Amino acid sequence: MATINKIGLQGKWNLSNGKKENVMNNGKVLGVDFNYSHYHNKRRFSLVIKSCNHGSTYKKVDTINGTKVNGLQVVEAPKKLSTDVALVTNGKFVEGRFVFRQIFVIRSYEIGPDRTATMETLMNFLQETALNHVTSSGIGGDGFGATREMSLRKLIWVVTRIQVQVQRYSKWGEEIEIDTWVDAAGKNGMRRDWIIRDRCTKEIITKATSTWVIMNRETRRLSKIPEEVRRELSPFYIHRIAVASEERDCEKIDKLTDDTAETTQSGLAPRWNDMDVNQHVNNVKYIGWILESVPIKVLEDYNMTSMTLEFRRECTQSNMLESMTCPTERVIGESDNNSVNRKPDLQYTHLLRLQDDKRDVVRARSEWKLKQSQQ
Amino acid sequence: MATINKIGLQGKWNLSNGKKENVMNNGKVLGVDFNYSHYHNKRRFSLVIKSCNHGSTYKKVDTINGTKVNGLQVVEAPKKLSTDVALVTNGKFVEGRFVFRQIFVIRSYEIGPDRTATMETLMNFLQETALNHVTSSGIGGDGFGATREMSLRKLIWVVTRIQVQVQRYSKWGEEIEIDTWVDAAGKNGMRRDWIIRDRCTKEIITKATSTWVIMNRETRRLSKIPEEVRRELSPFYIHRIAVASEERDCEKIDKLTDDTAETTQSGLAPRWNDMDVNQHVNNVKYIGWILESVPIKVLEDYNMTSMTLEFRRECTQSNMLESMTCPTERVIGESDNNSVNRKPDLQYTHLLRLQDDKRDVVRARSEWKLKQSQQ
Repeated sequence: MATINKIGLQGKWNLSNGKKENVMNNGKVLGVDFNYSHYHNKRRFSLVIKSCNHGSTYKKVDTINGTKVNGLQVVEAPKKLSTDVALVTNGKFVEGRFVFRQIFVIRSYEIGPDRTATMETLMNFLQETALNHVTSSGIGGDGFGATREMSLRKLIWVVTRIQVQVQRYSKWGEEIEIDTWVDAAGKNGMRRDWIIRDRCTKEIITKATSTWVIMNRETRRLSKIPEEVRRELSPFYIHRIAVASEERDCEKIDKLTDDTAETTQSGLAPRWNDMDVNQHVNNVKYIGWILESVPIKVLEDYNMTSMTLEFRRECTQSNMLESMTCPTERVIGESDNNSVNRKPDLQYTHLLRLQDDKRDVVRARSEWKLKQSQQ
Repeated sequence: MATINKIGLQGKWNLSNGKKENVMNNGKVLGVDFNYSHYHNKRRFSLVIKSCNHGSTYKKVDTINGTKVNGLQVVEAPKKLSTDVALVTNGKFVEGRFVFRQIFVIRSYEIGPDRTATMETLMNFLQETALNHVTSSGIGGDGFGATREMSLRKLIWVVTRIQVQVQRYSKWGEEIEIDTWVDAAGKNGMRRDWIIRDRCTKEIITKATSTWVIMNRETRRLSKIPEEVRRELSPFYIHRIAVASEERDCEKIDKLTDDTAETTQSGLAPRWNDMDVNQHVNNVKYIGWILESVPIKVLEDYNMTSMTLEFRRECTQSNMLESMTCPTERVIGESDNNSVNRKPDLQYTHLLRLQDDKRDVVRARSEWKLKQSQQ
C-alpha cells in the first residue's frame, strides 16, 4: 500500500474494504474535518436545543426507530416546540427519527447577482442541516458531526464525494425545507442524502447525496467503522435514496491536464476567511475557485443544474491554487424535459490543483442549463 | 463642482448640504446599492411576511409612532405570530414601531477558525436586519431598502460610512438578537444604528452605526431627500444612539500611500461570487480584502474590537485591488477596561485601492485586543 507522505493523500483507497493501511495525513485531506476536541465524559450528552428559557425534554430510550440501543441515552426532540424554541433550531425530526428537517429562509447576502441562492449557499445549508441532525440525534460528540464513540477514539468524518442536483434556485425571502438522512455505504462508509423542497408548494427543488468515511484525526489514517460507532449510527439508517441510481454520478471524473484544460486560472490564494476551525479550507469554498475558470458568459446566462465534487487532498492558507475547466460531452442518465436530469446545455470537467506541484485538490463535474430569460 | 467622470466618484461631497451637483456615476459608488427595479403601483405594498399558509394582517393606519401618515397604507406586524410565521422572519417590531428586532443563530458556516462569528457574518446580519426592517415597515419599494416613493423616483440608498464595535464574538449555536432603528442625519442623510445582544443574557455584545445618503440610480447624482420620502421615513425616526458620541469614530481616516503603508497585498481579484445583484462588489466583501494585508499573527491571536469603513468608490469584477495596512497610535475615546472602548492593543489604518490607477475604494480603521487565551 501507499507510504506515508508528509503533505497529502497517497495512493488509492477503497471505501468498501476499509483497510487500515490506507493512509492520509497532515490535516484535512478530503474536505470537511469537523471534529477537533476530545469528548470528556461518556455519560454526558449534547442538548438538542440550547436555550436559557426553555428546558429540553430528556428521555432514556431503549429503541430508536425500532432498533435496540443498549445503554445509550438519547435526547428526544420535544414533542411540541414553543415559538421561541422553534426560532432557535428551525429543525426537527420527522418520519419517526429517520429524517431530520430544517427550514431556511434565503437571506439577502445568500443570493447571487440574479437574486437567487447560490450553489455555495445550498452547500452551506446542507452542511448546517447535517451537523444539526447529529446534534439533535443525541449521539453527537463535540458538535462537529462526530458521534460520542467517535470522539472517544479521535475519529472524524471526512467527505469524499458530493453530488448536488438543482432543479430551481430559490429567490431572496423564499422558504425552503431540507430533509436529510443517513444510510450505510458499503462496509465502512456512510451515505448522507438531502432533499430540498419549496416550503410552500413542497416541490422538490434540489437533491443531493454524499459519501463519508472515518479517519483518525491524529494519524490521518482511514479507519473501519468501530462496532460501537456502528451501534450509534445504525438506528438512524434508512434505505432511501435522494438521487435515483440512474441519475447518480458515480463515474470517474477525468483529471484535467495543461493539454486538456481549455481555461486555467492561476494564482488563486485562500483568504483568511476561507479557513475553517481547523485552519484548512472549508469544502464549500472550493466552489468559488472552480467557478473562477468558468467563462463569465456562462456564469451570467446559465444556471448550474448539477455539480459533483470529489475531494482528494487538503488545502491550507499557504497553498496557491490553479482552477482548470474543460467543456465535456457527457450526459448523466436519460434526457427528459420534465426531470432534474433533462439534458444539460453545457457540461464541464474541473480541476483544482496545487500550483507548485500540480497535485489534485478537487475534481469536479458541472452541468448547466440556459436561464429561462435567455431562452 | 466636480464634473462627471465615467469611472468613479468625483470631488468631495457633503452630507449636510445635499447639493444636487455632487456627482457620482457608473454603478455602485459607495458600498450598498440595493434598489434596481421600478415600483409599479403606488397602491400596492409589500407583505410583511410571505407565507402560503398564513394570512398577514393588513390595516389602514393614519399614524405610525404617533406621527400622521397621510394616505399611506401600512402593513402592521401581526399581533401574534404563529410558530410557522415566526420561523419565516425571526423579526418583529418592538417599542412601538421604532425598533425592529431580529433573532439569529450563529450557523456552522458563519464562524471563523476560532469558532466564533466573523466580522463579515456580523455585517451580513446588519444588512439583513436593515432590509427586513424596511420590508416589515410597509414602506418598502422593491425590497432592497428603498421606500416606495424612492423607487418611483429611481432613488437608491448608498452607505457612506459604517462603524462596528464588537465587545464579544458569538460562538457557533449561540443566539443573538439585533435591534435596528433609523434617525435623520443632517438634512439629507439617514443614520441607521444597531445593537446586538446575547439573546439569553441580554448583554450588549456589538454596537454599530452607519450613514446613508440618497442617489439617483441612473444619473448617479446625490439627491436631497424628497419631501414625499421624508414623510415615509420620519414616522420611524427615533432619537437614540447606539454608539455614544465619545466613542463614535467620526475622524477622517488617513489615506495610506506606498510610503506610509507597512504591508501591501496586491493582485486581489473579485470573484464572481463577490458580486451583488447589481454586479458590483457587495460591501461586506471588502472586509476580507482588508484582512489580507493584516499580519497573520494578528488574525490568529487578536480579536477585532472595532472597524470603521468609509466607502469611496465602486469596484466591479474587472477591477484588481490592492490592500494596504499600517499600524497607528490613535485611540478613540477614553480607556476603560469595562467598556467596549477600552484601549485597544493594536490599531490599524487600511486602504483598498484600485491597482491600476491607485484610486481609493475603501478607507478603514480597525482596533484589536489580544484574545483572552493569549493573555
